[in-house]
Amino acid sequence: MNRTNTVVLPYLGGTLTIGRGPIVVAAGPCSIESADHMAISGARARSSGATLYRGGIFKMRTSPTSFQGLGYPALDFIASAKQKMGLPFISEITDPRQIEAMLSVVDIFQVGSRNMYNYELLKELGRGQTPVLLKRAMSATIDEWIKAADYVVQGGNSSVILCERGIRTFETATRNTLDLNAVAYVKAHTNFPIFADPSHGTGRADLVAPMARAAVAAGADGLLIEAHDHPSCALSDADQAIGFDELAELVKSLEPVARAIGREIQT
Amino acid sequence: MNRTNTVVLPYLGGTLTIGRGPIVVAAGPCSIESADHMAISGARARSSGATLYRGGIFKMRTSPTSFQGLGYPALDFIASAKQKMGLPFISEITDPRQIEAMLSVVDIFQVGSRNMYNYELLKELGRGQTPVLLKRAMSATIDEWIKAADYVVQGGNSSVILCERGIRTFETATRNTLDLNAVAYVKAHTNFPIFADPSHGTGRADLVAPMARAAVAAGADGLLIEAHDHPSCALSDADQAIGFDELAELVKSLEPVARAIGREIQT
Amino acid sequence: MNRTNTVVLPYLGGTLTIGRGPIVVAAGPCSIESADHMAISGARARSSGATLYRGGIFKMRTSPTSFQGLGYPALDFIASAKQKMGLPFISEITDPRQIEAMLSVVDIFQVGSRNMYNYELLKELGRGQTPVLLKRAMSATIDEWIKAADYVVQGGNSSVILCERGIRTFETATRNTLDLNAVAYVKAHTNFPIFADPSHGTGRADLVAPMARAAVAAGADGLLIEAHDHPSCALSDADQAIGFDELAELVKSLEPVARAIGREIQT
Amino acid sequence: MNRTNTVVLPYLGGTLTIGRGPIVVAAGPCSIESADHMAISGARARSSGATLYRGGIFKMRTSPTSFQGLGYPALDFIASAKQKMGLPFISEITDPRQIEAMLSVVDIFQVGSRNMYNYELLKELGRGQTPVLLKRAMSATIDEWIKAADYVVQGGNSSVILCERGIRTFETATRNTLDLNAVAYVKAHTNFPIFADPSHGTGRADLVAPMARAAVAAGADGLLIEAHDHPSCALSDADQAIGFDELAELVKSLEPVARAIGREIQT
Repeated sequence: MNRTNTVVLPYLGGTLTIGRGPIVVAAGPCSIESADHMAISGARARSSGATLYRGGIFKMRTSPTSFQGLGYPALDFIASAKQKMGLPFISEITDPRQIEAMLSVVDIFQVGSRNMYNYELLKELGRGQTPVLLKRAMSATIDEWIKAADYVVQGGNSSVILCERGIRTFETATRNTLDLNAVAYVKAHTNFPIFADPSHGTGRADLVAPMARAAVAAGADGLLIEAHDHPSCALSDADQAIGFDELAELVKSLEPVARAIGREIQT
Repeated sequence: MNRTNTVVLPYLGGTLTIGRGPIVVAAGPCSIESADHMAISGARARSSGATLYRGGIFKMRTSPTSFQGLGYPALDFIASAKQKMGLPFISEITDPRQIEAMLSVVDIFQVGSRNMYNYELLKELGRGQTPVLLKRAMSATIDEWIKAADYVVQGGNSSVILCERGIRTFETATRNTLDLNAVAYVKAHTNFPIFADPSHGTGRADLVAPMARAAVAAGADGLLIEAHDHPSCALSDADQAIGFDELAELVKSLEPVARAIGREIQT
Repeated sequence: MNRTNTVVLPYLGGTLTIGRGPIVVAAGPCSIESADHMAISGARARSSGATLYRGGIFKMRTSPTSFQGLGYPALDFIASAKQKMGLPFISEITDPRQIEAMLSVVDIFQVGSRNMYNYELLKELGRGQTPVLLKRAMSATIDEWIKAADYVVQGGNSSVILCERGIRTFETATRNTLDLNAVAYVKAHTNFPIFADPSHGTGRADLVAPMARAAVAAGADGLLIEAHDHPSCALSDADQAIGFDELAELVKSLEPVARAIGREIQT
Repeated sequence: MNRTNTVVLPYLGGTLTIGRGPIVVAAGPCSIESADHMAISGARARSSGATLYRGGIFKMRTSPTSFQGLGYPALDFIASAKQKMGLPFISEITDPRQIEAMLSVVDIFQVGSRNMYNYELLKELGRGQTPVLLKRAMSATIDEWIKAADYVVQGGNSSVILCERGIRTFETATRNTLDLNAVAYVKAHTNFPIFADPSHGTGRADLVAPMARAAVAAGADGLLIEAHDHPSCALSDADQAIGFDELAELVKSLEPVARAIGREIQT
């Protein structure tokens, strides 16, 4: 199979290369909330140092009675809101039947940890050319995760980014256990670009910054960070979101860490 | 939400009630292999004491290059093979787009552990009336599992059976850790009928019988057992399949255990 | 190494054989509380069907400020309290330096899950002849557990009973996950007598009875059950203790399960 | 309780302060092998940038027939070998009865992960003044680990360093899962100095360097690294040991990472 070691996206009139080059920061709210909110928070994400904007349209929630995301209606305003904020957009897909509608607004399809084993979805994404960010399932071995990525690659789409987001363990002080061993392992033993998500990986806003720095030191090619203009008002995952001021400070603190290992942060 | 405590199926001219009544045994191969194999192994399953026939058409395999099940072509012969063997048929669904094609041949839709969090699939199954057997994900808490079942119930389909199939732990002597605490807990705290799968729950043919008996003693309403006429030739999961002679012996050994707790085995 | 398959104890003027014969029930409070309490609760344990009395003198507690057991002073009254209640006594040892003082009152040394890897303690117990009940550590593989038992056997003491008491997993509805796979595995692949502890294995009084029955069906040679005359007043582990009336009912319910697999309950 | 935030040791005629100041590297073989080996490898550890020498005298091995360390006879040559190499010495204690004999040669008592719950040992170490490095047990929650440290502190010995060494999960590509969330958490929420052990935490020599850098970025006050002059000949844990040339390179690479977060490496 033809695994690639970089994923290339159009970016600010040029291109953004994810993988062996500068480290990228993807930031944004857990859920897309409105056109205005997307434009404003996207602009703030960008000015804080993020190069990708993340936000959920279709949310995976444990309970069927929890907020499930804005869904299809959001697709109407996202194209224009995206243009205002100027960052490539990454959003989660939860059903192969969403692909067509999302294609026009999404630059990277995120497959969440709950869908890592949804091989029918992965096969369908493999038939397209849009890059896929594949989160590790809560208790997937690294080997299963790589093989899940191969479901996409086998279909002809070699633009797959892996994303470590914390595994499920017995620990209760943190929501999940961010497995940076896995980041270092994927870096050493595969070609796939590898991201880390310190927000879900810790579930605690106070641990996001040190673990983001640790992920960069371990070799991550990118970070996925939940940031919100009013973290405590986020429609979902409020405990782990940081504010944009904190994000700006965090991105600044990542630069010397990246340089320490011979890399830089994408600006 | 209107959770039911029994799931009722047509059975041998009458009905089969799954839940509070007699304990049912579902048996059959990991994968459907051919029309003849289905007819023959179904007849053997029935004469060994099984009241449901299980077999995969769409398989979830870790590697994209492993055998993925016969898929849609198998649907052509299943209806007639089913009639020959005379047992209700339970088979795994892996994509909402398969529902229509499978509806005519499947009596119970199995949602596998890898798809327990596939909420779009669960919502779609909730719009129909076909019973759903929902396996627990490898590291799902009991609470997440019950809430996943509620995705089906909320749609209007109250016929949901939960199935414990082993959780993922550090243990390597067994493939998974069959969590009978969960069986006893679901029995005590919910209305859902609860099955156990000692084949996946142990991954070892030599432990299937004692763990099947333990599951019955813990309160399981049914068992899902991999049985094959030539276990070592099974197209998948050969290590954990038992032969039909062993199955017959096992079912016979379950009867006194069921009686010991005031129940019986469905014949 | 000379592993035995039975452990023999003096019992009511005769002997009690633990292992291949009748299944034994060990019951009693988490902690020894007083001479009177021991005599009374021991008598009640016996009349409820228990054949061994369990109770902690030296307690392993997560916090240094929690109740640590009565300790050495309790040894003064235990010998006489034991005579009144008439059951062999099993109690936890937490330090090799306690051996000498405990030898005269203890019939079986319990090594708790927190000390399974305390090889210096195991080596010391291997130099004596008193039987040892070795609980599995919270995340020990079955292989590590058997090898820990071999530390005792290698010293010359072949009287080792293994006891599964629940492993630590991500599940939070139960305190631990009672791994009956391990009971069936030890039974099939070693000579060691094997017990199960459904009290610690579930951490919930309401699940003790079904899981005790399941353990017997899985092949356990004995059960370790926390029982207390006033469960909610127990000095430790109140949530998982059952009353003696419940114990009597439970033991009665075990008899047909034992018979169902060709065994009986020791009376 | 009087938890301290620094542990102070005599060092090269002055003192070494572990905790809030420069980050220290402890390196050396899994097991002490001989006087010459200790002198030579200690000198190499020192010239590679280590400020503490680690090596086991009493080893905790899963099997009773594996090499158990040199034990008491090694104490005869350690004092003089220590003088030749000039680094403070950290070694594991496995039994309270070893304290007296080890006191004269050990600068820091290491309590291994298998003994984290050995509260009798911790209480005894709390009665002395020698600093204690307390490794986290394989499946201890952070809360249990901190409370175990409090067993030492409560006795009057406030010089406790915590050491994260990898937790046990389902992952098999790495020996353990180094939990850097725990490092960041301990740093943010307690006063205890915190170390990380990337050797045991990964079990793979090829991941030691990136994970050592990640641990520093996460906030570790020190590292514990297995290094050997001939890694593949190490008497134990050969897979995870690195050579001294690699160690020197690693320590050099840690310096810019430490500076990136406003700290430095102790020289």
